[in-house]
Amino acid sequence: MKLSKQTDYAFRTLIYLGHLPEGELATIQHICDFYRISSNHISKVVMQLVRLGYVDAVRGKGGGIRLSYPAEQIALVEIVRHFETTLQPINCSEQPCRIIRGCKLKGLLEGAIQAFLSALTGYSLADILDGETQKILFMEG
Amino acid sequence: MKLSKQTDYAFRTLIYLGHLPEGELATIQHICDFYRISSNHISKVVMQLVRLGYVDAVRGKGGGIRLSYPAEQIALVEIVRHFETTLQPINCSEQPCRIIRGCKLKGLLEGAIQAFLSALTGYSLADILDGETQKILFMEG
Repeated sequence: MKLSKQTDYAFRTLIYLGHLPEGELATIQHICDFYRISSNHISKVVMQLVRLGYVDAVRGKGGGIRLSYPAEQIALVEIVRHFETTLQPINCSEQPCRIIRGCKLKGLLEGAIQAFLSALTGYSLADILDGETQKILFMEG
Repeated sequence: MKLSKQTDYAFRTLIYLGHLPEGELATIQHICDFYRISSNHISKVVMQLVRLGYVDAVRGKGGGIRLSYPAEQIALVEIVRHFETTLQPINCSEQPCRIIRGCKLKGLLEGAIQAFLSALTGYSLADILDGETQKILFMEG
């Protein structure tokens, strides 16, 4: 039962940016170095976050990226919805399942996914930022 | 947001066996042919279902497999628990995430997975068997 790598990296990027000291910018390289994730993966996720309006890219020398909104306004469930390529826990149409027409499992799993999303609804990025993480991010080098 | 192929195939196998006419046996080859899934994948899943006690294997000529219990006694949530290698939607320890110590996302996602599992709790294999699927399985050839 897994979220995609894209969602995982989007969360890690937002958590990094959410802990940035006021007025500072990060670079993709900072984030990759910190999490030890290839810059190829993080670049794609950052581009998508910029396109979706969650992240601002400041160009030029000394440029970088930062959150576009206060963390309180970034709903975690929306990040899942934007970055998951599917919200079907079983892909019935990938190698078309022959019982798809009558299958009642599909509806049950859809209900379970709704329960998963409902449990995240109401939480924002601000709810997962804290001093302990900030210490790890910016004080332990 | 996906369940593993193993869970998917376990469900498909159980749905097939759950619709078997009383007293009949299926073979792994029947199931593979019906769903057009490689016998290698289905064999592993069936072995696991036998090991877990959900499926009986009858040896010898004319042998085959069938459910060990009535479908009412096969809890769908237990199938998910047995066949998912992880119930963590993000694998924090795979390439050890450096913020794992302070991360508050982990707890939120664990809560969401519990909500997913709770939504399935109480449903059995019998709840997803029906005449329409049986028709597709055994009457449309």
